[in-house]
Amino acid sequence: MELAFGKMGGLIPTVIQDERSGEVLMLGFMNEEALRATRESDEVHFFSRSRNKLWKKGETSGHVLKVKDVRIDCDADAILVRVEAIGPGVCHEGYRTCFFRRLGRDGTAVVAEEQTFSVEDVYGKGAE
Amino acid sequence: MELAFGKMGGLIPTVIQDERSGEVLMLGFMNEEALRATRESDEVHFFSRSRNKLWKKGETSGHVLKVKDVRIDCDADAILVRVEAIGPGVCHEGYRTCFFRRLGRDGTAVVAEEQTFSVEDVYGKGAE
Repeated sequence: MELAFGKMGGLIPTVIQDERSGEVLMLGFMNEEALRATRESDEVHFFSRSRNKLWKKGETSGHVLKVKDVRIDCDADAILVRVEAIGPGVCHEGYRTCFFRRLGRDGTAVVAEEQTFSVEDVYGKGAE
Repeated sequence: MELAFGKMGGLIPTVIQDERSGEVLMLGFMNEEALRATRESDEVHFFSRSRNKLWKKGETSGHVLKVKDVRIDCDADAILVRVEAIGPGVCHEGYRTCFFRRLGRDGTAVVAEEQTFSVEDVYGKGAE
């Protein structure tokens, strides 16, 4: 079964789920190189669209994602990686999950989770 | 907070998670119309890239996805919808989740879940 990297210009949307809690932590994109690096290191790598390069999740924060299980969907155009998330959270805004905002019916987004770490402590002063 | 529909030509990758079990069921794409239809009906709609049109999940099978919670990620370029999944499964191949194949280290994919319904019974004879 060939992964459908061609559908989105070489990228496949990849869901990261905490293996123990079941919480969906983030969504990123893998290209073939990122998938290879992920399998070889057992730590999640993505292709960063904004920086246009391979990106190991946690390379700055230390909050790496240890691979426990890799699934592909029926059309082989989406990946699900179940992980052990090292550290207090994956989100650069200081939350366990990047999906910490609830979208209301009126289109407004409100924070629905507790912050779990200090952004300044982890990413340095002046970090967003 | 504006959703970043512009990043991917009007589409936002959307993760569907079973609210009770935590299982990740599928990944689809929403455009603004699909998100609006989802909010108005409380049933998940996607934009079908292959058919190039709005698509209500379950319109053929009856296996609709009832919206329980909608989250957006920190960059507002991914959506997570927690749902009550009506029926025995969301996958057109007869499984509870579309992520029923495990990807091995050698790149081979093997079925890792039990089939939960007959594709022929639900989608009709000759259906894939």
